[in-house]
Amino acid sequence: MLIDRLITKIKELSAPIVVGLDPRLDEIPGCIKNEIFAAKGRTPQAAADVIYAFYCAIIDQIYDVVPAVKPQVALYEQFGVPGMDAYFRTIAYAKTKGLIAIGDIKRGDIASTAQAYSNAHIGRVSIEGEDVEISQTDFITLNPYMGYDSIEPYLQDCKRYDKGLFVLVKTSNPGSGDIQDLMLQSGSTIYTQVGRKVIDWGRSLIGQCGYSNVGAVVGATHPSQALELRKLLPHVFFLVPGYGAQGGSGKDLKDLWAENFGAIVNSSRGITGAYRAEKYKGTFDEPDFAKASRQAALDMKADLWEYMPWN
Amino acid sequence: MLIDRLITKIKELSAPIVVGLDPRLDEIPGCIKNEIFAAKGRTPQAAADVIYAFYCAIIDQIYDVVPAVKPQVALYEQFGVPGMDAYFRTIAYAKTKGLIAIGDIKRGDIASTAQAYSNAHIGRVSIEGEDVEISQTDFITLNPYMGYDSIEPYLQDCKRYDKGLFVLVKTSNPGSGDIQDLMLQSGSTIYTQVGRKVIDWGRSLIGQCGYSNVGAVVGATHPSQALELRKLLPHVFFLVPGYGAQGGSGKDLKDLWAENFGAIVNSSRGITGAYRAEKYKGTFDEPDFAKASRQAALDMKADLWEYMPWN
Repeated sequence: MLIDRLITKIKELSAPIVVGLDPRLDEIPGCIKNEIFAAKGRTPQAAADVIYAFYCAIIDQIYDVVPAVKPQVALYEQFGVPGMDAYFRTIAYAKTKGLIAIGDIKRGDIASTAQAYSNAHIGRVSIEGEDVEISQTDFITLNPYMGYDSIEPYLQDCKRYDKGLFVLVKTSNPGSGDIQDLMLQSGSTIYTQVGRKVIDWGRSLIGQCGYSNVGAVVGATHPSQALELRKLLPHVFFLVPGYGAQGGSGKDLKDLWAENFGAIVNSSRGITGAYRAEKYKGTFDEPDFAKASRQAALDMKADLWEYMPWN
Repeated sequence: MLIDRLITKIKELSAPIVVGLDPRLDEIPGCIKNEIFAAKGRTPQAAADVIYAFYCAIIDQIYDVVPAVKPQVALYEQFGVPGMDAYFRTIAYAKTKGLIAIGDIKRGDIASTAQAYSNAHIGRVSIEGEDVEISQTDFITLNPYMGYDSIEPYLQDCKRYDKGLFVLVKTSNPGSGDIQDLMLQSGSTIYTQVGRKVIDWGRSLIGQCGYSNVGAVVGATHPSQALELRKLLPHVFFLVPGYGAQGGSGKDLKDLWAENFGAIVNSSRGITGAYRAEKYKGTFDEPDFAKASRQAALDMKADLWEYMPWN
């Protein structure tokens, strides 16, 4: 099962790390940009080609260091149709390198609409009786605000095609508490309520590792709440944003780890934009941006290991 | 301002109606499908072309009956890149006919990611210093679960480009209560809490009509909660899903109306798939599918008027 494959890869590489691909043109070096923009103008198509070239180079340097990548669809979608094309192409390229692809799409909509998103990202779309695969994404992130019937359509495709979900439980942004932390009359918060629901959704998708293909998004930037969720959900696998640029460190994550790691931590700019960081500037020139990413991934691995409970 | 233009159009046409465009191939007649699929095969590109042709024909018949259309991006996204292209093309075509376009995208993500969605749908994306418009969408729907900082990035683009938002407050699906109806220790529900927040967000975007470019999604399928929200939010304009195929009727909406209508009601299949309904089958042959849609829109208008309080 997918979750077993993810955990096997994490163990092989000793790296519970996913590299977030959040395309921002100002992060991409001139050695990638200049030629393409000169040839195609300052167009969405050129931007999409730049992004794709940038991430292919980085993937070539990290695919044997980390188990997974997480493209953020919004940052591709802002370049319109060529941007969406680059999104799907990036996932396809990552898959050819053996990486697991987590599509950070955070979609949330009702019944038949949810099914359409599922078709687009983890299932198949039926075209006059022909089932067509649109994307090779393994996991997607989902937003549960519209209710539980907005998650259920995805579960069938998870079973049928061995795909997975990460449901937003407690996100890493400063305003995440506005809704998620609200205290209910029952005495629990929204995020614990949603967390419990994640257990139910994942029940029929549990792998040999003890975790389910249905996991939870739990931010690194709120350590006490993350610890509460770890205790409440010992058998739920976590996708953890908020490391690095957003402020979380290996130390903040120390209580998140569980059997078989139990979590995978995302870093985006901290890895893909490493060549611009003071730490790596002297060692890697701009044309070596992808090697700087590799080094940043290795350094992140070391930082995480330092605070793991079995160390 | 956008909200004034919407209300002016609603008044001119006496039709507080938005036609939802939710592409499903099995709803599209053979007279549109057969030739395109024969020429291009059962491919996403063919599906996208079929959908675009279908909605252009319907738009030609309804643009002088209703003020707005609401394409549901999920149903386009399921056809991948060609599907997204059809989504943007459908909006562009609707705009050439003077329709207001509500993009039902229900995106929800944090700060810089929210900005990217805003760039894609209502703002501009900067490509090496060149501001490029990706979509001509007027309003978009948004999901507030990640917190208030997930909405704020859109407000600037609303001001800069005179665009609008409909924030999910109380949706029309059966499971909408799972999160939205939860009762807080403060004694209010999540949906009323979010509703109050919509007032704040919209304060600096109020038009001459008394409403703001920032409105709320309030489903027709929960009349007592819709009434509660109407009283709580007398100056918030509502986008109301759930009419027709989802079960809501003109009678269910009677308490939603306010000064200058105060709401726009969505119908999707009830209008776009009218030619297949018993009611219209005898009168309109399949090649007249678009005329059936026109008639269904006129009939919906009559149903809504019957229960309006000023009648």
